[in-house]
Amino acid sequence: MKKKILVAVMATALTGVTCFAQTSTGVIEDFKPSSLNQPGQEFPQVNSQGYARFKIFAPSADSVKVSLGLGGRGGTRLAKANDGFWIGTTEGPMDEGFHYYNVNIDGGKFNDPGAMNFYGSVRWESGIEIPAHDQDFYALKNVPHGNVAQVLFPSAITNTLRRAFVYTPPGYNSNSKNRYPVLYLQHGWGEDETAWSNQGHANLIMDNLIAEGKIKPFIIVMTYGMTNEVKWGKMREFKIDTFQTVLTEELIPYIDAHFNTIANQSNRAMAGLSMGGMETHTITLNKPEVFAYYALLSGGIYTPEEIKDKSKVKLIFISCGSKERPDGVKNAVTTLQGAGINAVSYVSENTAHEFLTWRRSLYQLAPLLFK
Amino acid sequence: MKKKILVAVMATALTGVTCFAQTSTGVIEDFKPSSLNQPGQEFPQVNSQGYARFKIFAPSADSVKVSLGLGGRGGTRLAKANDGFWIGTTEGPMDEGFHYYNVNIDGGKFNDPGAMNFYGSVRWESGIEIPAHDQDFYALKNVPHGNVAQVLFPSAITNTLRRAFVYTPPGYNSNSKNRYPVLYLQHGWGEDETAWSNQGHANLIMDNLIAEGKIKPFIIVMTYGMTNEVKWGKMREFKIDTFQTVLTEELIPYIDAHFNTIANQSNRAMAGLSMGGMETHTITLNKPEVFAYYALLSGGIYTPEEIKDKSKVKLIFISCGSKERPDGVKNAVTTLQGAGINAVSYVSENTAHEFLTWRRSLYQLAPLLFK
Repeated sequence: MKKKILVAVMATALTGVTCFAQTSTGVIEDFKPSSLNQPGQEFPQVNSQGYARFKIFAPSADSVKVSLGLGGRGGTRLAKANDGFWIGTTEGPMDEGFHYYNVNIDGGKFNDPGAMNFYGSVRWESGIEIPAHDQDFYALKNVPHGNVAQVLFPSAITNTLRRAFVYTPPGYNSNSKNRYPVLYLQHGWGEDETAWSNQGHANLIMDNLIAEGKIKPFIIVMTYGMTNEVKWGKMREFKIDTFQTVLTEELIPYIDAHFNTIANQSNRAMAGLSMGGMETHTITLNKPEVFAYYALLSGGIYTPEEIKDKSKVKLIFISCGSKERPDGVKNAVTTLQGAGINAVSYVSENTAHEFLTWRRSLYQLAPLLFK
Repeated sequence: MKKKILVAVMATALTGVTCFAQTSTGVIEDFKPSSLNQPGQEFPQVNSQGYARFKIFAPSADSVKVSLGLGGRGGTRLAKANDGFWIGTTEGPMDEGFHYYNVNIDGGKFNDPGAMNFYGSVRWESGIEIPAHDQDFYALKNVPHGNVAQVLFPSAITNTLRRAFVYTPPGYNSNSKNRYPVLYLQHGWGEDETAWSNQGHANLIMDNLIAEGKIKPFIIVMTYGMTNEVKWGKMREFKIDTFQTVLTEELIPYIDAHFNTIANQSNRAMAGLSMGGMETHTITLNKPEVFAYYALLSGGIYTPEEIKDKSKVKLIFISCGSKERPDGVKNAVTTLQGAGINAVSYVSENTAHEFLTWRRSLYQLAPLLFK
């Protein structure tokens, strides 16, 4: 291991890259391109400790900053190198998993030309992946893969055509006699219906679970969860009524008519992350006849008093990252269990309000559904 | 009409936007956000004459340019306004349809934070849409819509999982007894398998044609057409062998096994734009037993001598924009017809080597396939 590192440092020195202050503070020089880079792009890079390094070409800029870095310190300021590039490394290791970020060039907010973009914060943001020690469960493997289909469905209440993505498991198309339960899976605020497959890898998590025989295959439907624009911090202004109608009276019938679903309450689940959890909470309570499995991922809790008919609820799953409020999640589940409800909690270790928490939550949730 | 424009100009003046030199040279101030903007973004804008206007926030930048503009003049240089924004309008009207572009901030190449991104030039580029007079044929309408499914298929020859997008027509899922012909449709150099549905609107073109009863439904399969990296201008280094194997020995059998296709030569077409046309030309000639319909969109021609067995070729379709080499296309088709081959030419009026040429070409091609 030590020898490898020496070679890496030498190669770095030979190609003339600036020496970083951090090298003297223990940063291991084994940086590799992030797995979410655009084709052929060498930067951004990540190392085995979770540091991220950025390199941006902007020869005449006066200031280049990256929004990622240690909390509260305003991200990472890049330093000008003598070839027109700006280079910098995060002050410390990042949490494992996926992070959104953007690049500030002379006061304007842009994306990193090296990274792929992911919809978050109501904009297409740059994305970077810090390899997680457990990344195998969402890795792209040589196993049978399901499809993710873009579906355009008519919505009378919003007078628009709306988009959903539908994950169908391996074997779905070649055996049309099989019918499948359905999980309706919602994104967070500022994200959209692309989030769960792009940054969440929901399809790969399912493909891997199915290949290992850990779950019975089911369909996942992901659609856009907002029908009125609401800013973060003003979530009380969010009105659920229209989206509830879109979901339960427009999308579900469309899916049941166009896909091989088992179209009943006991084969239907709803889950959501963050704002999507809030939506899941409200809609499942409003419509107990529609869903039998409820899951909140970093998106609040249920109390026993809220459940009108316990016999209709097959499972309540509540999760969050250990850097969020794990005690709140655990206590809520204990209380639900005490009231005779089948409730399960999950806490993702060493993660915050980010997508690794939610990837892991889906991985934990899926085997509990449709038993 | 005049009154509307006056109101628009007044509103512009009231909100304090810089006056443009172009207003005195006949630019109509009816600018609206481009249809390809990110949600809620007001800029870039386009007007009814085809001018594009850009507005970028970069308060401390020294220079902001947009790569779009009149040919050969290096794009559009934006002028600094006093609120931290840079603003500018193209010197003249742009061709109708879709254009890739990027923004140069102090010498670095970035994307416009207002626009959505599309993969072209081997990077995710900003996209803008100049409304075309005939845009109705690819408009999103309240008609039954097919799906576009992301498929991950194993490729032994490249030792990777490769991605394809599969358009299935309306009714595909709800009536699994129907079987459909298949068009294999290739992107151009620097693009990828997302191009035909994102910037090409191939799915909407099909949905509209089917809704109007102008074509019999068929499936379209779009996959990545490169297996070795080749720079533009060095296309002679491109080796078709591996991609030909991926397409004909790996993807086609996968599609035939997983979708309801009519799996024979006379129900299989191949088409491609630009580099994808070059690939179509080579592969159809190498594999006459695989495809019966051939189409080159701004991607070269066939000569009668190249066709070994005319009885196997049901159609040759060759197209380009009127700003490309329409005479070459027309002459080639006349020569093919003279040799007894069913050949059709199409020239897209007032377009160049861009996506409106190819959207229109698909619209012309689709009704001729699988007769």
